[in-house]
Amino acid sequence: MRLRNIANARKTLEQHPEMVILDPARHKGLWKKIFENNNPIFLEIGMGKGQFICDLSERMSDVNFLGLEKYDSVMFRALQRLVLNPRQNVLLLRGEAENLLEYFAPGEIERLYLNFSDPWPRKGNIKRRLTHMEFLDRYKIILVPDGEIHIKTDNRLFFEFTLQHMNKYGMRFELINLDLHAKEPKDNIRTEYEESRSAAGAVIYLAVCKFIG
Amino acid sequence: MRLRNIANARKTLEQHPEMVILDPARHKGLWKKIFENNNPIFLEIGMGKGQFICDLSERMSDVNFLGLEKYDSVMFRALQRLVLNPRQNVLLLRGEAENLLEYFAPGEIERLYLNFSDPWPRKGNIKRRLTHMEFLDRYKIILVPDGEIHIKTDNRLFFEFTLQHMNKYGMRFELINLDLHAKEPKDNIRTEYEESRSAAGAVIYLAVCKFIG
Repeated sequence: MRLRNIANARKTLEQHPEMVILDPARHKGLWKKIFENNNPIFLEIGMGKGQFICDLSERMSDVNFLGLEKYDSVMFRALQRLVLNPRQNVLLLRGEAENLLEYFAPGEIERLYLNFSDPWPRKGNIKRRLTHMEFLDRYKIILVPDGEIHIKTDNRLFFEFTLQHMNKYGMRFELINLDLHAKEPKDNIRTEYEESRSAAGAVIYLAVCKFIG
Repeated sequence: MRLRNIANARKTLEQHPEMVILDPARHKGLWKKIFENNNPIFLEIGMGKGQFICDLSERMSDVNFLGLEKYDSVMFRALQRLVLNPRQNVLLLRGEAENLLEYFAPGEIERLYLNFSDPWPRKGNIKRRLTHMEFLDRYKIILVPDGEIHIKTDNRLFFEFTLQHMNKYGMRFELINLDLHAKEPKDNIRTEYEESRSAAGAVIYLAVCKFIG
């Protein structure tokens, strides 16, 4: 998700170092120290405007949340939300999924969320999909051994790709839901995009997966 | 699928031993001899009224097809179809999936089709689902090592169950299609039930899976 550039977004982000980490590589291996507690850390890759991570962090106050986002203009929206409703257990990280190993030590993350990731539909871009094997390699390293990956999408081709490739990688599916909103679980937290796609009649898919062995 | 009992169905089946095998256990390990060639054998479990197997056997004349069905009255419909259009490469088998190991020697089947199997939605009936682990155990034995299982269904819960359990069993997904009719492949052969469900707006799911290792 990319918004039109918002003037001075970067400058505003820089003014809130207590909520925004612009150089996450500096804190590799130190995230629990930064949160000043030993709670598990859940990471959302591609946080967008932050509705999901903010809502979830309210429900799960004994978990620390990191929201990774690569666009200043998008992160600015998440910061706006967070400034209005400050939370001790949320930090926004400016960075890219390609560089996860620079940001996190092995086993530093307890759970990963991939919400409505860019499906990169063209074949030439398959390697950019966040469930491509090269990303799975990284997730496996930064996650605790039993850590879950929660994936939501409305893109059928992306979800088919994801199921096939995670299966091929040897991952275990803890849960598959091929129409999440047909009987929406009470604990589902919708993203902004999920709201609008669901209202437009799209089917929402969910998978929860683990590495095994 | 169960039709109202058709009077004398059994009697008619008995009159066509060249097309109908009422006691498949007698031919265990001998199926290629019965077809009098060395072509691969594809088995449909729950053949229903036979549209799928008859159409497929026309397209693939160098494959032998076996259609397993447990209800006389349903098999009678398939026989009617076959009598009108006799095929050397099709046999109808009266039997039950529970007893597959009595009908087939290890590695005797090259491919399995499960089309719109009974989803057995109640939890107490999970073991009856044709993709339950206890059936997978049997399929693994009768299939050649690289043999595929092709599954079509319009039942979301059954398909979610199937993907999860085949994944847990260590099977590989060669193909997953979460809306087969959205851009229907030319080589898709619809079953009678598939026709009517698709016309009613149902989503059709497809998976192609293999055992590995």
